[in-house]
Amino acid sequence: MTATPDLYVRDLHGSLQDPVLGSIGFLNEVMGRYPDAISFAPGAPHPEFVRDLDTRVLADRFVAHLVADRGLDPARAERVLYEYGPAQGLINGLVAQALSGDQGIHADPREIIITVGAQEALLLTLRALFRHPGDGDVLAVVDPCYVGITGAARLLDIPVVPIREGAAGLDIDDLAARCGEARREGRRVRACYVAPDFANPGGARMPLGPRHRLLDLAAREDLLLIEDNAYGFTAPEDDTLPGLKALDTRRRVIHVGTFAKVGFPGARVGYAVADQRVGHPDGERLLAEELADLKTMVTVNTAPLAQAVVGGLLLDHGRSLTALARRKAERYRRNLDCLLDALDRHLADGLPPGIAWHRPAGGFFVRVDLPVPADINLLEVSAAEYGVLWTPMSQFSLTGRGDRQLRLSCSYLDPDRIETGVRRLATFLRKEAVA
Amino acid sequence: MTATPDLYVRDLHGSLQDPVLGSIGFLNEVMGRYPDAISFAPGAPHPEFVRDLDTRVLADRFVAHLVADRGLDPARAERVLYEYGPAQGLINGLVAQALSGDQGIHADPREIIITVGAQEALLLTLRALFRHPGDGDVLAVVDPCYVGITGAARLLDIPVVPIREGAAGLDIDDLAARCGEARREGRRVRACYVAPDFANPGGARMPLGPRHRLLDLAAREDLLLIEDNAYGFTAPEDDTLPGLKALDTRRRVIHVGTFAKVGFPGARVGYAVADQRVGHPDGERLLAEELADLKTMVTVNTAPLAQAVVGGLLLDHGRSLTALARRKAERYRRNLDCLLDALDRHLADGLPPGIAWHRPAGGFFVRVDLPVPADINLLEVSAAEYGVLWTPMSQFSLTGRGDRQLRLSCSYLDPDRIETGVRRLATFLRKEAVA
Repeated sequence: MTATPDLYVRDLHGSLQDPVLGSIGFLNEVMGRYPDAISFAPGAPHPEFVRDLDTRVLADRFVAHLVADRGLDPARAERVLYEYGPAQGLINGLVAQALSGDQGIHADPREIIITVGAQEALLLTLRALFRHPGDGDVLAVVDPCYVGITGAARLLDIPVVPIREGAAGLDIDDLAARCGEARREGRRVRACYVAPDFANPGGARMPLGPRHRLLDLAAREDLLLIEDNAYGFTAPEDDTLPGLKALDTRRRVIHVGTFAKVGFPGARVGYAVADQRVGHPDGERLLAEELADLKTMVTVNTAPLAQAVVGGLLLDHGRSLTALARRKAERYRRNLDCLLDALDRHLADGLPPGIAWHRPAGGFFVRVDLPVPADINLLEVSAAEYGVLWTPMSQFSLTGRGDRQLRLSCSYLDPDRIETGVRRLATFLRKEAVA
Repeated sequence: MTATPDLYVRDLHGSLQDPVLGSIGFLNEVMGRYPDAISFAPGAPHPEFVRDLDTRVLADRFVAHLVADRGLDPARAERVLYEYGPAQGLINGLVAQALSGDQGIHADPREIIITVGAQEALLLTLRALFRHPGDGDVLAVVDPCYVGITGAARLLDIPVVPIREGAAGLDIDDLAARCGEARREGRRVRACYVAPDFANPGGARMPLGPRHRLLDLAAREDLLLIEDNAYGFTAPEDDTLPGLKALDTRRRVIHVGTFAKVGFPGARVGYAVADQRVGHPDGERLLAEELADLKTMVTVNTAPLAQAVVGGLLLDHGRSLTALARRKAERYRRNLDCLLDALDRHLADGLPPGIAWHRPAGGFFVRVDLPVPADINLLEVSAAEYGVLWTPMSQFSLTGRGDRQLRLSCSYLDPDRIETGVRRLATFLRKEAVA
């Protein structure tokens, strides 16, 4: 462009040199260069669910609810869509009803904040909990981990401690060991991010016993758990487990959720349940109220129009997230079955040794172990010569863990594309994944 | 609530003990307690402008544009509303056309980022420009100042240096002095926030000469100017001044704007023009692209539905912000005239000495000087006994400046309410504003 740059990246915030921030852009860039490749990379929702959405009808539904259930006069209710609204949100009552009926999370609407997707909820929660850089407080995350939490921590200069991953996801013994280690070094594990149900990218589900053990550890070590529930809805309806927040009798859990997967991504509506009591010199407030104060300086409020559309979706489905998610959950379980079945058939034999894949019971993601590094170079070969894209697991790691793994996502593909994609993947692996 | 809090505010991020974060909530709380008072407090847009908005029609307009002008097939274009979109935005091209035609800001769409209101643009800009707390970089702001910038700086632990306010807004000599002072102390004024047109809360407009002097100072001191243009549209059409960005030949200005006032607040759509070239070891990027990377960890992207509605508004008004804002600008100028006229009539005589008011040529805000502290106690008296609300100017100050001033906002009131409100204000001042 110019002879001399106006600025140098080394003179900007350090996060801009951290690969975690560029990871999403990088995958989009690769996908853009290979438009004919079948992509198992994005965890985006399936497009069929947005075909019959009518945002005007949904927003009208919410306006009618404001009139009928909350006593607003019709002109005032209509204006709610267009004016500034409260930082804490407009649909907190509907979300509270849904969480109570569906997930056994019994929260007062004042204990909830509505955010611009789960991402803003994660950022606000981290901002509230971490006092200032260099004070010794650290965030624990399972490694590999969803980039949204490590990226948000990076933006706020919050140090992150990676925790080992076991078959059940987060390794609780390792978390306990890291807490002790931090204490001995004069630091403190202030919070731990955990997605107990089919985490992105790991895919594991934490059984009930470890959930209780994790809550006990949090109480013992005086740390807070940030629970991300994005994929819990994909569990079979006869095989669900209570979330950490539903089991949380000691207010140790901040529960973060999103409508991106059960509603639609373009709404950018998420929420946090933050019922912790915060002591002030002159009384008490709720942590959700503190998060709302922080939000006034990030996005002011969540677009009322988007909240109204999501509110309309909840009203149309009996104020139930489960009902809203049912058809989607079925589709994603079917896609996951297709993917696992295709892997079984196409990768059954003739493969180099050292290739294996995991069998999650839900979620969007399947991991495949390779005998060779699953890096950017291999991805380019896969895209250019075999027409199939995936995500290197190392993109999610702070420590290089998973450098011989790739992540397959099946959420937005149709079964015939999954079949063709796995066939291409099998050819690719047979030729290229040779140690 | 409980006997023992779960957390203590002293153990949370320091911003939560800073009055700047609570200021918006505080005013809403006072307004809530006095629903019958006439409030000159909020700078919210007038409700008449949302009465005839049809978001479905506007979004359809944008979808048709994607098909006609950008060659998307209709099903794909419709899906843009509901799916994840690029972090940098969907309507950058329309915003670039509007800025070029209306304001003489000639930016490539890639030099623009669409954000969740101007607030997110301010936060992202600060995050990019400030490396880490304690490195000696400071942000300069005029004092008193819009709380959105000082609050965002507080969230990121960025130190703020107050700059004196003169009749033309920011006192450029004082800024130059503070730059020199910082340099001598081993610190650096990295950026300066400035709203040259009818700033909130000051109301001043910076003349053309000082605009050029400020740009020269920025080049000389190697600092960046963050220009907030929220109120520029209220200038009379035959009496506009070029913004700093339109005059910026050296890429010293990051220009931040919002559709909250010219479109509608509930959309939560704003933007930044950040055309600075950023040198990387392996090439160059645009600052707007860096801001987009940061945005992936704050809100991921701006709700496509909201962007589509704003895009529809621009298309409906010949891709012109000026055309979109015309009717609103007329209404606000009329309101300001009403307010100044009512002050002239009702405060003409019989007032205690030391009361005076300023006469801005645009914007939403009029300042009134009092001979006594304009504090929270006086506001309570005004609300409870005289039925009129205003904002203490000290809410906007880092240094207690303006402790004997109040801010009147006239944007969302009708002329008859302005008249009644000023009559009440006059009675209040006669009885209570006595030194």
